[in-house]
Amino acid sequence: MTDIRFALAQIDTCVGDLDSNAGKIMRYVRRAAQQGAQVVVFPEMTLTGYPIEDLALRATFRKAAWNKANWLATELAADGLGDLFVVVGTVGTDRETSKPRNRLVVLHDGVVWDGYDKHFLPNYGVFDEFRIFSPGNKSMVLDVNGARIGVAICEDIWQDGGPVAELAEQHIDLLLTMNGSPYEEGKTDTRLDLAVRRAAEVNAPMVYLNQVGGQDDLVFDGGSFVVDADGTLLERSPMFMEDLSFFDLDTTAERQKAGSIAAKPDPDEEVYTACVLGLKDYMAKNHFKGVCLGLSGGIDSALVAAMAADAVGGANVYGISMPSMYSSDGSKDDAADLAKNIGAHYDIQPIEPLFVSFQKQLDLEGVAAENLQARIRGVIVMAYSNSKGLLAVATGNKSELACGYSTIYGDAVGGYAPIKDLLKTRVWEISRWRNKAAAAGMGIGGLHVVGNEQGLAGTPLPDGVMIPVNSIEKAPSAELRPGQKDSDSLPEYELLDQVLAMYIEHAHGREDLLADGFDETTVDTVMRLVDRAEWKRRQYPLGPKVTALAFGRDRRLPITNAFRE
Amino acid sequence: MTDIRFALAQIDTCVGDLDSNAGKIMRYVRRAAQQGAQVVVFPEMTLTGYPIEDLALRATFRKAAWNKANWLATELAADGLGDLFVVVGTVGTDRETSKPRNRLVVLHDGVVWDGYDKHFLPNYGVFDEFRIFSPGNKSMVLDVNGARIGVAICEDIWQDGGPVAELAEQHIDLLLTMNGSPYEEGKTDTRLDLAVRRAAEVNAPMVYLNQVGGQDDLVFDGGSFVVDADGTLLERSPMFMEDLSFFDLDTTAERQKAGSIAAKPDPDEEVYTACVLGLKDYMAKNHFKGVCLGLSGGIDSALVAAMAADAVGGANVYGISMPSMYSSDGSKDDAADLAKNIGAHYDIQPIEPLFVSFQKQLDLEGVAAENLQARIRGVIVMAYSNSKGLLAVATGNKSELACGYSTIYGDAVGGYAPIKDLLKTRVWEISRWRNKAAAAGMGIGGLHVVGNEQGLAGTPLPDGVMIPVNSIEKAPSAELRPGQKDSDSLPEYELLDQVLAMYIEHAHGREDLLADGFDETTVDTVMRLVDRAEWKRRQYPLGPKVTALAFGRDRRLPITNAFRE
Repeated sequence: MTDIRFALAQIDTCVGDLDSNAGKIMRYVRRAAQQGAQVVVFPEMTLTGYPIEDLALRATFRKAAWNKANWLATELAADGLGDLFVVVGTVGTDRETSKPRNRLVVLHDGVVWDGYDKHFLPNYGVFDEFRIFSPGNKSMVLDVNGARIGVAICEDIWQDGGPVAELAEQHIDLLLTMNGSPYEEGKTDTRLDLAVRRAAEVNAPMVYLNQVGGQDDLVFDGGSFVVDADGTLLERSPMFMEDLSFFDLDTTAERQKAGSIAAKPDPDEEVYTACVLGLKDYMAKNHFKGVCLGLSGGIDSALVAAMAADAVGGANVYGISMPSMYSSDGSKDDAADLAKNIGAHYDIQPIEPLFVSFQKQLDLEGVAAENLQARIRGVIVMAYSNSKGLLAVATGNKSELACGYSTIYGDAVGGYAPIKDLLKTRVWEISRWRNKAAAAGMGIGGLHVVGNEQGLAGTPLPDGVMIPVNSIEKAPSAELRPGQKDSDSLPEYELLDQVLAMYIEHAHGREDLLADGFDETTVDTVMRLVDRAEWKRRQYPLGPKVTALAFGRDRRLPITNAFRE
Repeated sequence: MTDIRFALAQIDTCVGDLDSNAGKIMRYVRRAAQQGAQVVVFPEMTLTGYPIEDLALRATFRKAAWNKANWLATELAADGLGDLFVVVGTVGTDRETSKPRNRLVVLHDGVVWDGYDKHFLPNYGVFDEFRIFSPGNKSMVLDVNGARIGVAICEDIWQDGGPVAELAEQHIDLLLTMNGSPYEEGKTDTRLDLAVRRAAEVNAPMVYLNQVGGQDDLVFDGGSFVVDADGTLLERSPMFMEDLSFFDLDTTAERQKAGSIAAKPDPDEEVYTACVLGLKDYMAKNHFKGVCLGLSGGIDSALVAAMAADAVGGANVYGISMPSMYSSDGSKDDAADLAKNIGAHYDIQPIEPLFVSFQKQLDLEGVAAENLQARIRGVIVMAYSNSKGLLAVATGNKSELACGYSTIYGDAVGGYAPIKDLLKTRVWEISRWRNKAAAAGMGIGGLHVVGNEQGLAGTPLPDGVMIPVNSIEKAPSAELRPGQKDSDSLPEYELLDQVLAMYIEHAHGREDLLADGFDETTVDTVMRLVDRAEWKRRQYPLGPKVTALAFGRDRRLPITNAFRE
């Protein structure tokens, strides 16, 4: 019997931060070695962070990454860890074309083994890989003490053919995959189904190692796992946390032994946790210690404030109530209650005097006057951001954004919008889940996410309630004119969200939507709103391209890029 | 001798506006037929507009485009124009994969001939084609009265091999190319050099037909041309205007006869015109009749206002002077002079009372107080935009944007930023050029651009001056604190712009920049500013992805998209 111990190092990296990523790799390899691992596998593009977008095109960055990989191999050997096979992702350079490559290398015996280049380069949805990388064209089998370990990177297993099909012919003992697979509702099962198929194809167990953490507008959920050749789930790491798990491969056994299998969170918890981790990592990687946001008493800002408190603690949340002449007393009370529940700073900045000053000069009416209120609030939120060094967070939800039911440069200001991908009906569901968790004892910061590995219960909530029930249950209103209700301008959210899901996510056209059973008035209303909003949403300054390299579409640079040339 | 007359229909289309694009095609074919053309060639993706980005992925859109092409073929035949070969671009569908294709079709005899699919799909810089289209793999030779016409689409001629290499073996009489090639300084010569090479490769004359007009953040410059097999330039259409030119192919002659060759504008005129056309078309395609902007008396807002007047006339420009306690009298006078010169509306909205109201509540200091002034101005500009239905234009230049020397949600507000791709030193050069043109008699709107085909002298300028000389010559200042100068925070622009060009456009790293001869302090200052600004620039709300299709990176939708499903 040949036993090989694999360590699954599910870590959170930062794009461009070669030093910190390399340091983390070192620490995890040491821990893995202490527990007897012979192979340590890390996520896709571990050393560089992922996705690095057009940063890959800078030769200075590729050179720095190459130097750092060599430094790491040398350090590991100097530490007496040269015997281990440390499988990390990085950026390489195609010698023929000088184009970057998405590369897996093996650090062993003090040397960087020039390894395997990703074959299938996704170029859809959030992915731009074909834009920046040239595809690899050779499969690779790694010999570890006589065991044959085939490797693949992320998209390589999502497409038929290519390296996995080649490996199927090569009698491998295990398929080792490193991934940078962003979170999406329901994706845990999709990935598992896929892995089961690939394990059967190569007739060997398969390791699926995924990245964890927020990077710009993506959240990677981890949830790494191992399946046996027959599809049995042998091991699963937790979601949303860094983790080091182990898998012992017995190359002589017909079937492998199962280890520990982390439970899947329920769907509401999963989404809430993804949003919190996205915000927490966006702040950490951009060096923000606190957030500021407007608290209206409505459900959107209440949920976002709750998420912020769970991410960085209530003491680092600055809630600003900015009542106008149209704000109800109920709204002001709800905002104050929320702030008290989460232990946030709470300031009241009435906008009426400011509105009056502007109106003396501008004398606006209708929508222009409504937008003015929202923009005064935007100025106040940004003033807190600038003067206290806080991240302004925007509180818009997906239904609102889809329909353009928000004010550009007004309530839409901020560097991160935690719930921008949640439809309004989902906002209510998630809020109810968080209150249920509070009632069950989960305090502030009690979530299992990166940076909170102990799984603390969190700071207790005063009455076991987080989000005021009134914020969840009252009829939504922008409160920009007397008696205003969202339903004056929009279909009821229960209906609206269904149409939006079909129109936006399923690309249904007008005829399809009618065939889906929606009535003509609703369909035409929603389509008109969305078309108009698509256009409003992109009202941030565009400009003509004149030189070889303008800003904007010419370069896709990562945001939380820590690389310094 | 066989003579075939080609009409080069250099038109301006609108993304998604199938009706209007088809109508324009009809009008140009009629005009071409009246002048004896047998073949009429239009730009890349004529019918759909270009670039259509992810709109191509919507099946409803592809179906509508297909129906419109058929309608057009039928209408042309009904009009007695069925004998012509009308070569238009559209979106097709790959029958095997159901993916969209970038397609050239020939309308003839009342039928849409399913033609040629673009082979090379650019996926760099501003291009995303490999993301959305599947590549064609067959070359095509069209038989027109016995003459063999090879075809290619844009990138097909920029890459070696592929369809042009195939056509080189096929003894063609002419290479016909349709293009959607965005403007860039110096590209006229690059395109000509390329065409000369390809004409030699296929040993035949080559037609290069380019799109014209602004589309979102791109400007297409037209400048279509014909070169002979030996590289002689035979024909050139004007830049920045719609045009219908002709080329008579003599298939029996060794060399072709030259026609009319439009002169190239000088480099400053070219850039100025590109910026004006970009703004003019952005307004037209988004249905804006006028613009509003802050007029500070500085050169950036003066140049942008001049461009706006040239685009839509001074009467449609609303200049707003928003002096603070730090604004000099000179600045106010310069702003007023500029507005008078271009015949713009001119309002004065002092921000001091508003600033005082905010400060009573917020009591800000330092940069936060400076940003507050810029944001109050942003609120005022957007109030004009909302209440009068005007496009807010942002006045930032590339040096300023690169260094983050502007206020997000402040002076950076607006839907279009005409000079965002001009370095500050270029802003001065271009402004001087415009004044020279004014002195030489070019009034407001006197540029040769789409929608102004007559090449009018324009509305006379009162004293033959457009931009106040003082705005060009004084030391730049943001005037956000007493005595402030740009040079307090930034290196002198002459030096700064040189470093920016190497760092941003040539991707030079720190070592390269030192080797370029820049001193260490300057290099470190500029790199720090740019790194910080990259990050600031992208402070518009990002958010985590939760569902299969979020907003943001998941979808790349065109802005001026007129398609209604």
